[in-house]
Amino acid sequence: MSKCFVERFELAGAAEGPLAGLSFAAKDLFDVAGRVTGAGNPDWAASHPPAEANAAAIQRLLDAGARLVGKTITDEISLGLLGINAFDGTPLNPRAPDRVPGGSSSGSASAVAQGLCDAALGTDTGGSVRVPSSFCGLFGMRPTHGRVPTAGMLPQAPGSDTAGWFAREGEVFARVGAVLIDEAPAAPPASLTVAADAFAFAGPGVAEALAPALARLEAMTAPGREDLLAPPGFATWAKAQRTLQLAEAWATFGPWVEAQVPRFSYLVARTLMAGAATPAADLPPARLVRDEARGRLAHLTRGGGCIALPATPDPAPPRDLPLAEMDRARDRINAICALGGLTGHPVLVLPAGEVEGAPVGLAVIGARGADASLLALARDWETA
Amino acid sequence: MSKCFVERFELAGAAEGPLAGLSFAAKDLFDVAGRVTGAGNPDWAASHPPAEANAAAIQRLLDAGARLVGKTITDEISLGLLGINAFDGTPLNPRAPDRVPGGSSSGSASAVAQGLCDAALGTDTGGSVRVPSSFCGLFGMRPTHGRVPTAGMLPQAPGSDTAGWFAREGEVFARVGAVLIDEAPAAPPASLTVAADAFAFAGPGVAEALAPALARLEAMTAPGREDLLAPPGFATWAKAQRTLQLAEAWATFGPWVEAQVPRFSYLVARTLMAGAATPAADLPPARLVRDEARGRLAHLTRGGGCIALPATPDPAPPRDLPLAEMDRARDRINAICALGGLTGHPVLVLPAGEVEGAPVGLAVIGARGADASLLALARDWETA
Repeated sequence: MSKCFVERFELAGAAEGPLAGLSFAAKDLFDVAGRVTGAGNPDWAASHPPAEANAAAIQRLLDAGARLVGKTITDEISLGLLGINAFDGTPLNPRAPDRVPGGSSSGSASAVAQGLCDAALGTDTGGSVRVPSSFCGLFGMRPTHGRVPTAGMLPQAPGSDTAGWFAREGEVFARVGAVLIDEAPAAPPASLTVAADAFAFAGPGVAEALAPALARLEAMTAPGREDLLAPPGFATWAKAQRTLQLAEAWATFGPWVEAQVPRFSYLVARTLMAGAATPAADLPPARLVRDEARGRLAHLTRGGGCIALPATPDPAPPRDLPLAEMDRARDRINAICALGGLTGHPVLVLPAGEVEGAPVGLAVIGARGADASLLALARDWETA
Repeated sequence: MSKCFVERFELAGAAEGPLAGLSFAAKDLFDVAGRVTGAGNPDWAASHPPAEANAAAIQRLLDAGARLVGKTITDEISLGLLGINAFDGTPLNPRAPDRVPGGSSSGSASAVAQGLCDAALGTDTGGSVRVPSSFCGLFGMRPTHGRVPTAGMLPQAPGSDTAGWFAREGEVFARVGAVLIDEAPAAPPASLTVAADAFAFAGPGVAEALAPALARLEAMTAPGREDLLAPPGFATWAKAQRTLQLAEAWATFGPWVEAQVPRFSYLVARTLMAGAATPAADLPPARLVRDEARGRLAHLTRGGGCIALPATPDPAPPRDLPLAEMDRARDRINAICALGGLTGHPVLVLPAGEVEGAPVGLAVIGARGADASLLALARDWETA
């Protein structure tokens, strides 16, 4: 039940640096020189050679003195939000052992939450850092799109892909983040919008569970002003993102799928096929919705403001769900996570409350490029 | 490369009987008491208990004195015609080692063709006995639908499923078949239609390669009369069968897929999804096409006549094809094999010719219920 690594090893970092003494793990989508990047699928691993160099994000952490302790389980080729992998197993969610850990960066979140390392790298295209952060009670962040270099990281949908990270402690989280974004924590956001529609969309008890954390966030930023985050509806945004992301994912993986005819969980195969079947005529309207979403978030975060919302609409669902319930859980998560990949804004997840004994995080969306202001929130979160 | 069994064991038959001294294998879709029927998929095997009793077809052979020597590889849950299984491996085609063996009864055909047993049981819904018979140069038969009991055989599309068998030698084939259909070989068919459209559809060299076998068949039956087998086109028949068969397959497997969310080859997942996505409105017109196809075959086989056509339009394609070429190969096979499941008529495959050094069989469609007349052809094929 403590499974989270696909491979454990030790790769020392620089002798000195801001991260000296810290250990980290990396999702098995990041290249480590001399090792095969397995991507959570046995046929991917079998059809690719060992990496020639370390991924840029890994190298940054090593150069800053952190030590790499292994590669972690991921949903197959990063397609999944629940953290279920039928080949490698579903990692433990130590905060709620009968529930999924969230994904696709499932093993990274699990390893950090279990205390097996101080921090971990994940990827976030549609929610793959934010969801396991929320479900496992961790700090996690999806940086501004393009902010942290993705060289040596397996792409899924390059227009939305980001390299993110997890930690249990805010100070460690901010220190690792400062290395990854190459900027020290800055002043916290100057204003706060509370996403009334997102809190209303969340499941029973979530808004109440997050209320103390929201009050703390207000104390660190400014009194919250309630507003609609997504006037056309989260379903509209999520549909646009799903259209664009899965079409890109098929462009990424289709040639490999068509050449190798690999094995997948039925769930993953179905997701890929949805991408393969995207009508070209669906893309232009989805791009218009994306333009409007980007405009809306730029408006709400103007002047360095931030937006608070539940990181996930519900706590983690149980392990071993039937397909229809997996679909339902994923659709609800997508509804309020799709905006990350759609707009490219940075999103921080703060450990916040519990519902039925399972964690739910508070998400804070920052202005594009204002990643350093979000780091400040994490750094001071436990002491504010 | 000699892989074909998933499990080898010895189960003795009756001490005396018409099959005493013969060995046989069974596709891992047939129940053997006390063993899990694996169906070619690890998640099927893991989610089902051992069988309580032997499948009816196995019991018939045991009771007649044959001895069971193992269970053979199958395409996952019988969905496939090429004999490719990404979990268990693709069995050897000993007659053309760089080509696929054909499926889904791949391991049964391979075991017989390798001489590892005298006969083997397979299943044929859309071509799963006929295709590997053709590709491996064996005698094989899909009996009249409902003729050989399918109790204890994993269903796929019950409206088309049959239990069939393979052998290398015509006399053995007929002897095993007589036990399975519970009827001795009868007089051979009294008339012969040569399916001009099927021979025209076959790939380069196939008609020429089958000409000597066709002449032998004429000598055993009657001078052939050329006619169209499928006036509306094989594509029309195959499309109707694919619609009906995959909708039934989803009805069979969908509840398990939705509960277990198993792993599959992408190819198999895609086939299942096609079944799941069948519009209900597509079924009635497909049933009308089926009615017409049944009428056409009843007409051509009236009075106990038979119809000759290539068992497959081409010899076996190479192993390790990319997806698009697998699709193309399967579509061509379906074109002239779909009529078996669509009409329920018995179809015998006789080892016949070679194209580019790889076998292609000659198929003989009989009148419904006239299985015993086809057995006579097999029995006398090598000595006629």
